[in-house]
Amino acid sequence: MVSDEAASIQRLIDKDQIIDLVHEYSYCVDHRLYDEVVELFTEDCVVDYGPGIAPVRSRASLREMFRHPGGGFTATSHHNANVLVTFDGADRGSVRTSVYAWHKRSDGVTPRVWGYYHDAVVRLPEGWRIAHRQLRVLGVEDWQMEMHPAVDADGE
Amino acid sequence: MVSDEAASIQRLIDKDQIIDLVHEYSYCVDHRLYDEVVELFTEDCVVDYGPGIAPVRSRASLREMFRHPGGGFTATSHHNANVLVTFDGADRGSVRTSVYAWHKRSDGVTPRVWGYYHDAVVRLPEGWRIAHRQLRVLGVEDWQMEMHPAVDADGE
Amino acid sequence: MVSDEAASIQRLIDKDQIIDLVHEYSYCVDHRLYDEVVELFTEDCVVDYGPGIAPVRSRASLREMFRHPGGGFTATSHHNANVLVTFDGADRGSVRTSVYAWHKRSDGVTPRVWGYYHDAVVRLPEGWRIAHRQLRVLGVEDWQMEMHPAVDADGE
Repeated sequence: MVSDEAASIQRLIDKDQIIDLVHEYSYCVDHRLYDEVVELFTEDCVVDYGPGIAPVRSRASLREMFRHPGGGFTATSHHNANVLVTFDGADRGSVRTSVYAWHKRSDGVTPRVWGYYHDAVVRLPEGWRIAHRQLRVLGVEDWQMEMHPAVDADGE
Repeated sequence: MVSDEAASIQRLIDKDQIIDLVHEYSYCVDHRLYDEVVELFTEDCVVDYGPGIAPVRSRASLREMFRHPGGGFTATSHHNANVLVTFDGADRGSVRTSVYAWHKRSDGVTPRVWGYYHDAVVRLPEGWRIAHRQLRVLGVEDWQMEMHPAVDADGE
Repeated sequence: MVSDEAASIQRLIDKDQIIDLVHEYSYCVDHRLYDEVVELFTEDCVVDYGPGIAPVRSRASLREMFRHPGGGFTATSHHNANVLVTFDGADRGSVRTSVYAWHKRSDGVTPRVWGYYHDAVVRLPEGWRIAHRQLRVLGVEDWQMEMHPAVDADGE
């Protein structure tokens, strides 16, 4: 019973840290804190924003991608809701996070994306980190790039 | 003191499970996982999306409703924020969840709803389930159906 | 070890209460429960919605501001996501909360704001309260008032 309770507490603490991790991503991206963004990922992370861009492989490549942010956005606002964490052992988890992302281009157009981040997270000595992230999309507005669909065309 | 601490931990665990419950609803609806959606409700649930539709009574009726989703939406995206849980004893709770729901119709129009889910949840042997859900609305865009207002016309 | 665990649990409980605090604000504002809104703040709170309005100083002044809500909104919907809490000792914390705020004016225009609340919260005998709140903005639509920028014009 004591060990059950300790395990439950550890699970709550881990979940809390993982939820903070996905929130920190959005905060840092929106505030252009790119050095901080990439610290949220593992060194050999794979980040797949859609078939329109080759998946980024490694933290260094992710930092490079943020050096030249695509789309020429003058502002972004990423709102995470519905964060769902499931664990696969003590040190690995899967996270599904709904995101409503508003962007502003220099020409005033405001592309929007509604979708989900699907993350694999791992516990490293320094804390939980994102090892794999894929964005899957439910809908877009004024957004041209091809995206991974969250729901297949046949409705599954 | 020990029992206070154990009660606090149990409360955190319950709250975490209830928050997951409302998030699972939105994930499953948006991904058209209707068998999974109805598993989140009690067998005799009452689900009231607005005066424009008769309240659904029972899990089976809810499943039937999702067999013929209204509005002909080709995509939906439900973003829950501001989840507020209050307990009424150990096995019952009330939940208020803000929702920003984006929908896409086959004609390209994107109806939107801003409002709150008001849920009554109960603990069953298999876990927390939604016994009653009512959607109350703060605002809509391109949405024709009559809805329950979150705030009365007189501002209360 | 026992005291570490107790501290971890206390931290989770505090964080949960602080997250509820920011969610209650949005719920109460959207439902025009202004007496309840101001109870979420300290007596000598400072609330700074932007350089276009003088910061409100004191709970009584905040209540007065809500007596004459600016902008003539007939409805509002404030969606908090990405709530990030950090602690500064046992009784003080900082909170960054992303907000997507939809408003409706009596002329039908729907001004929108995407940004972050930056709060300082303190533990009082009656619970956690907001001592200082500043709204910093990433983007707006149909919104005329000058706002504090979340990101400086030079991109920092």
